[in-house]
Amino acid sequence: MLQTLSTAFIRTLREDPADAEVASHRLLVRACYIRRAAPGIYTWLPLGLRTLGKIERVVREEMNRIGGQEVHFPGLLPADPYKASGRWEQYGPTLFTLADRRGNDYLLAPTHEEMFTLLVKDMYSSYKDLPAVIYQIQTKYRDEARPRAGLIRGREFIMKDSYSFDMDDAGLEASYRLHRHAYERIFARLGLDYVPVDAVAGAMGGSHSEEFLHPSPIGEDTFVRSAGGYAANAEAVITPAPEPVDASAEPPARVVDTPDAPTIEALVDLCNERYPRSDGRAWTAADTLKNVVVTLTRPGGSKELLIVGLPGDREIDMRRLEAAVAPAEVEMAVDEDFDGHPELVRGYIGPTAIGPNSPDRRVETDQDGRERLAGSVRYLLDPRVVDGTSWVTGANAMRKHVLHLVKGRDFTADGTIEAAEIRPGDPAPDGSGPLEPARGIEIGHIFALGRRYAEALGLSVLDENGRARVVTMGSYGIGISRVMAALAEANHDEHGLAWPIGVAPYHVEILATGRDDAVFTAAASLGEALDAAGFEVLYDDRRRVSAGVKFADAELLGMPYIVVVGRDLAREGTVEIRDRRSGERSSVPVTDAAGRVAAALSEALARA
Amino acid sequence: MLQTLSTAFIRTLREDPADAEVASHRLLVRACYIRRAAPGIYTWLPLGLRTLGKIERVVREEMNRIGGQEVHFPGLLPADPYKASGRWEQYGPTLFTLADRRGNDYLLAPTHEEMFTLLVKDMYSSYKDLPAVIYQIQTKYRDEARPRAGLIRGREFIMKDSYSFDMDDAGLEASYRLHRHAYERIFARLGLDYVPVDAVAGAMGGSHSEEFLHPSPIGEDTFVRSAGGYAANAEAVITPAPEPVDASAEPPARVVDTPDAPTIEALVDLCNERYPRSDGRAWTAADTLKNVVVTLTRPGGSKELLIVGLPGDREIDMRRLEAAVAPAEVEMAVDEDFDGHPELVRGYIGPTAIGPNSPDRRVETDQDGRERLAGSVRYLLDPRVVDGTSWVTGANAMRKHVLHLVKGRDFTADGTIEAAEIRPGDPAPDGSGPLEPARGIEIGHIFALGRRYAEALGLSVLDENGRARVVTMGSYGIGISRVMAALAEANHDEHGLAWPIGVAPYHVEILATGRDDAVFTAAASLGEALDAAGFEVLYDDRRRVSAGVKFADAELLGMPYIVVVGRDLAREGTVEIRDRRSGERSSVPVTDAAGRVAAALSEALARA
Repeated sequence: MLQTLSTAFIRTLREDPADAEVASHRLLVRACYIRRAAPGIYTWLPLGLRTLGKIERVVREEMNRIGGQEVHFPGLLPADPYKASGRWEQYGPTLFTLADRRGNDYLLAPTHEEMFTLLVKDMYSSYKDLPAVIYQIQTKYRDEARPRAGLIRGREFIMKDSYSFDMDDAGLEASYRLHRHAYERIFARLGLDYVPVDAVAGAMGGSHSEEFLHPSPIGEDTFVRSAGGYAANAEAVITPAPEPVDASAEPPARVVDTPDAPTIEALVDLCNERYPRSDGRAWTAADTLKNVVVTLTRPGGSKELLIVGLPGDREIDMRRLEAAVAPAEVEMAVDEDFDGHPELVRGYIGPTAIGPNSPDRRVETDQDGRERLAGSVRYLLDPRVVDGTSWVTGANAMRKHVLHLVKGRDFTADGTIEAAEIRPGDPAPDGSGPLEPARGIEIGHIFALGRRYAEALGLSVLDENGRARVVTMGSYGIGISRVMAALAEANHDEHGLAWPIGVAPYHVEILATGRDDAVFTAAASLGEALDAAGFEVLYDDRRRVSAGVKFADAELLGMPYIVVVGRDLAREGTVEIRDRRSGERSSVPVTDAAGRVAAALSEALARA
Repeated sequence: MLQTLSTAFIRTLREDPADAEVASHRLLVRACYIRRAAPGIYTWLPLGLRTLGKIERVVREEMNRIGGQEVHFPGLLPADPYKASGRWEQYGPTLFTLADRRGNDYLLAPTHEEMFTLLVKDMYSSYKDLPAVIYQIQTKYRDEARPRAGLIRGREFIMKDSYSFDMDDAGLEASYRLHRHAYERIFARLGLDYVPVDAVAGAMGGSHSEEFLHPSPIGEDTFVRSAGGYAANAEAVITPAPEPVDASAEPPARVVDTPDAPTIEALVDLCNERYPRSDGRAWTAADTLKNVVVTLTRPGGSKELLIVGLPGDREIDMRRLEAAVAPAEVEMAVDEDFDGHPELVRGYIGPTAIGPNSPDRRVETDQDGRERLAGSVRYLLDPRVVDGTSWVTGANAMRKHVLHLVKGRDFTADGTIEAAEIRPGDPAPDGSGPLEPARGIEIGHIFALGRRYAEALGLSVLDENGRARVVTMGSYGIGISRVMAALAEANHDEHGLAWPIGVAPYHVEILATGRDDAVFTAAASLGEALDAAGFEVLYDDRRRVSAGVKFADAELLGMPYIVVVGRDLAREGTVEIRDRRSGERSSVPVTDAAGRVAAALSEALARA
């Protein structure tokens, strides 16, 4: 059916929405694809719904191709399965929870591992039933602390989630690879650049996982690549620990006055001036050890301080730190967090008074008979701080630092933590060369879950010998609505959206300009001819709207082909065909227009 | 793609689920179309999802045909618009509500009038933008007190909801009629018998509304029809009030002892024995007036007693009473509800001590300056209790009744109420003849809303003269998932489902029976030929499953055509084509099978 713009539920906006920081958010709202209903919650308008449907179709076809069977779970779920798996607690405030009129606990589905596990348990009982891949395209809910960037990080969003069920590790590996290939085909068909990177599993658990990132400067994820083929989410990078250093020649530790050193830079300058090194080399920021105090909030709500020690020339990467302490949430410590910790002298915290080095450190037995550390805050070090390394660091007294404090000789720690930023040129963990960081939007994530959910929920089947065997699972997600945002990021210019034909709401937009009835008649009959030939046509038939506004709207809406029927019709008997993406324009006789446009669309669709 | 049963996510159940009372629930679960996830909340399995998709497609096509534009709203909605419209309160415990991590109120959408109103307010500003019809097919949530019958009354369900926006009443009427016709086409295309009946608008508000009921003995709604063309939901029937009666010849009221009359029947017998009528006619139940005490709970939670007086030969119809007092909820009064009401002598309650007849009745002014009745419970009468009618009723003292108590002469009431059951033969309100009651499943509901939501949420547009005019709206729902249940109710037999071809998950199921490899080869190639010809084929390729089980499964699953490839292939070179619905069978040479089946399917699809 030929859609006329005069009757379409489309009203473009001239102004950017106030809350929109990124192009996809800005343009999808201005072009009337989506509208905000609440923070991180959007309404799909007709254009957005059409593009969404096209993305879904590609995903569905590729999931069906690997034998996926489509189901559809509720969005409102009973709490019990999530309590059994531990995720009711683990998700913490990210879970939307509620009680029904009888007081039973429910949640809005953040993802459906538990429900799929129980469904397969309900239906399958034998090794003959496996392997199986089951999927859905469904609405998910996560009460993000900071919803942002429109569809990039929402609180209600659309996901394809699939799950594989296998008898053994080899089966899981095969299902995992099937999904990996399906994802490669999906993103290739959508024309969306992607990089599969090693990832941390986070709340999902499991043995290994990979993310599919769409490289984009507005991406929330940082990933790193080496020329030698290593690729990982920055969160997943394990810092290669250097060999221990021989510190036998290192002078003894020495506490010095540092009256005016509020920053690492000032401290380094002051040390070089007052306490020059005996070996003639200058102190640098890399010689300092800074100790950063953060608070961890466990899913149950209990809080704990943690001190992270890292070389003074590196910053904390909050996302790496978050991943390292998940499912706890982490924040920089504030004034009140220091109450009850007189040993922590802010600005001058050093290893000798904290962690295992503290004279107060002791092992206590709690009421459940478990041993735990008490008396001082837990202290974790960057993996580069190996035995024998020597540091300038806080002396736990106002305006005092200590020089030549040697790890292993003068202090130790409770362990290491991956919390420091990765810098360009840092070595890849697999020795494949220096790392280059970039940013990306997470558009897919595949997890080899293993048996965590099957064990928690009792999913086992009988093997060839009649013995019960716990099933091993994989879980595989694609953020459908986020993919739409990534596509908008990758396909726009300063004038608006510029969709690839495979996901454009309509294949072509026809504009009738001016006041000449003949123009409108010719445009309508061109539209009807293309519609009858099976193409999807949007026809800007608005009267009393200037050609300029129509051009601007067409460029904003972003259909890949724009046909202008206007002045040239009467003067030369021609219409103009514009390729929105390449900018190419060609003038063709109106009598040839339907055939020419049809040929261009057919060719573009065949390529898509 | 040819779907083989051996790899399909389908496991039929031999036993009825314990909680299933009705055929659709029983069969949709046993045939693996749906699975219960929580009370009133279901998971869609592959077969169910396919049928659902086909129903949605028909609805979508007919909504598009009347110019409907499809959008998709969130399921999780901010509370403010629902507070502004009053429905946050009005829905009471039926609303699923929750708070997000910041403590803001949200709800799970029960229906979207508020959101559509705000969206149109956001996008439209002129009379030139109207009329408009906007719709969605979306998941809805209602925390029903008594979810039942599988998909018939769920707590999470799928609805098509559309909304019309017009400048004036004539426009609304036109939009309403467009929807009415679209609904007629939808149900006709689905092959689903329906009756449009007058309805009450309930929580929705609005000037008038009609329900589309699918006649079915398991339906929750009672409706009535007259031969003269009247049709209404029983809830919406207005009892025609008889003319007042001349009571001048009626004896004075007389209190009598009724020592052993716990029931209406016993009371009538006792009166006939001890207090025979002077006119020689016997007392009947229709001469008695019973006074039933109920409690109303207002949306805010406040409670109130109400006494309903009705002829003793009629029962209270709780659904009519519920509709009459909505949005209050109603329950029969229990012991503790009588605390503080010594005037209510249970079993002997009569008009003279209650309502306006009570000596305690007075008008009080509350703190907001509003007048309200106090001192006695409110008393409402069945409309048949007109002035001059004479009754045997309670005398407000233990073991005493009163005879010849005349309405208008001896007592009055606070008003009338539609709470009595409708009996076959009762007159239609429009004089079109006696009423015949029947039961039905509500599959659609159309409301002429008027300006309630537009006024509450400030939706107005400028008219031709530049003056702001409040828009008038309609709201139109189809319970998509409930339609599927109604289709299952209308299309099954004792062996299982028997879908019309338009909504069957597959057009045909092919069974290969026995152990002969040639049978499986022939069945598979028949399946592939039909699949290649564009038909949807389910192929039961299971080995080591008996023919009996395969037949039983095929009849349970309910595809409209079943092709059996078995013994006759080797013996006679034939296969059998069965029509699941008519039971017809025909034997055809295997070489003709693809052509014959294709012809039968094409013909059936053309008729659908």
